Amino acid sequence: MQFLKSIAAAGLLSFTVAFPAIAGTPAEDIEAANKAFADAYNAGDAMGVAAKYTEDAGLLPPDGKRVDGQEAIASFWKGAMDGGLKNLTLRSVEVDSREDLAFEVGAFTLDAPGEGGSITTVAGKYIVVWKKGEDGVWRLHRDIWNAGAAE
Amino acid sequence: MQFLKSIAAAGLLSFTVAFPAIAGTPAEDIEAANKAFADAYNAGDAMGVAAKYTEDAGLLPPDGKRVDGQEAIASFWKGAMDGGLKNLTLRSVEVDSREDLAFEVGAFTLDAPGEGGSITTVAGKYIVVWKKGEDGVWRLHRDIWNAGAAE
Repeated sequence: MQFLKSIAAAGLLSFTVAFPAIAGTPAEDIEAANKAFADAYNAGDAMGVAAKYTEDAGLLPPDGKRVDGQEAIASFWKGAMDGGLKNLTLRSVEVDSREDLAFEVGAFTLDAPGEGGSITTVAGKYIVVWKKGEDGVWRLHRDIWNAGAAE
Repeated sequence: MQFLKSIAAAGLLSFTVAFPAIAGTPAEDIEAANKAFADAYNAGDAMGVAAKYTEDAGLLPPDGKRVDGQEAIASFWKGAMDGGLKNLTLRSVEVDSREDLAFEVGAFTLDAPGEGGSITTVAGKYIVVWKKGEDGVWRLHRDIWNAGAAE
């Protein structure tokens, strides 16, 4: 019996270690998801970025039409990568949640290619509506941003 | 006793009639609040517009810094009115809510003064995070927008 208890405890421990991202508060989980988002973007992995969104997610990019669904979202971010936008950083400013829905206000920077090989760092702000799946993972559900300081 | 019941029923009826805006679904209430927002804006009533926001609301305008609180929000919208931006229209595209928190994706248009007295209609999209007060009224809590079609 003691042996079974040890196995169960070890199993629980493994489970906790295997899913660190869903063990925290919504704010902690979303911060971890943002880090994974930026890592995927900066590795040029557009599909990996799109996988952070819900299946029926919608992007609302400045000066563009709404972009719906993971496939179109992957194409959108591939376009940004191909356009030379690099070194994405994301920073949560605030998160508030109810049940499986959260909103986040955040700040981002991106390095954009300028004239004569120069680099301009563009700063902006965003609101992301996050939705928690039945698997306990928070995913971007609606995503809108514009230029200018978040604070 | 029957008389008291009639009084109670009449009271309930009056209450329902007096507060039609809070009698609907979140989507219906938010649509009504948007209409009141646009009416106040188009009447040049910046304080009336600001009163539709929560006390600790935040605006995230394009190409500008975050604007916090009703007083600063009134000044922001007064600036837009003084800048000649007229005929605001708001249209809800979707609303989803949990408890006292809702998000709305919407579309707006504004008429902007152009060169030589011409008028350009600017179209954009937005996400508003709404919060329901203890009085049952939904108010804008976070508000971000950019240019481009919502759909």
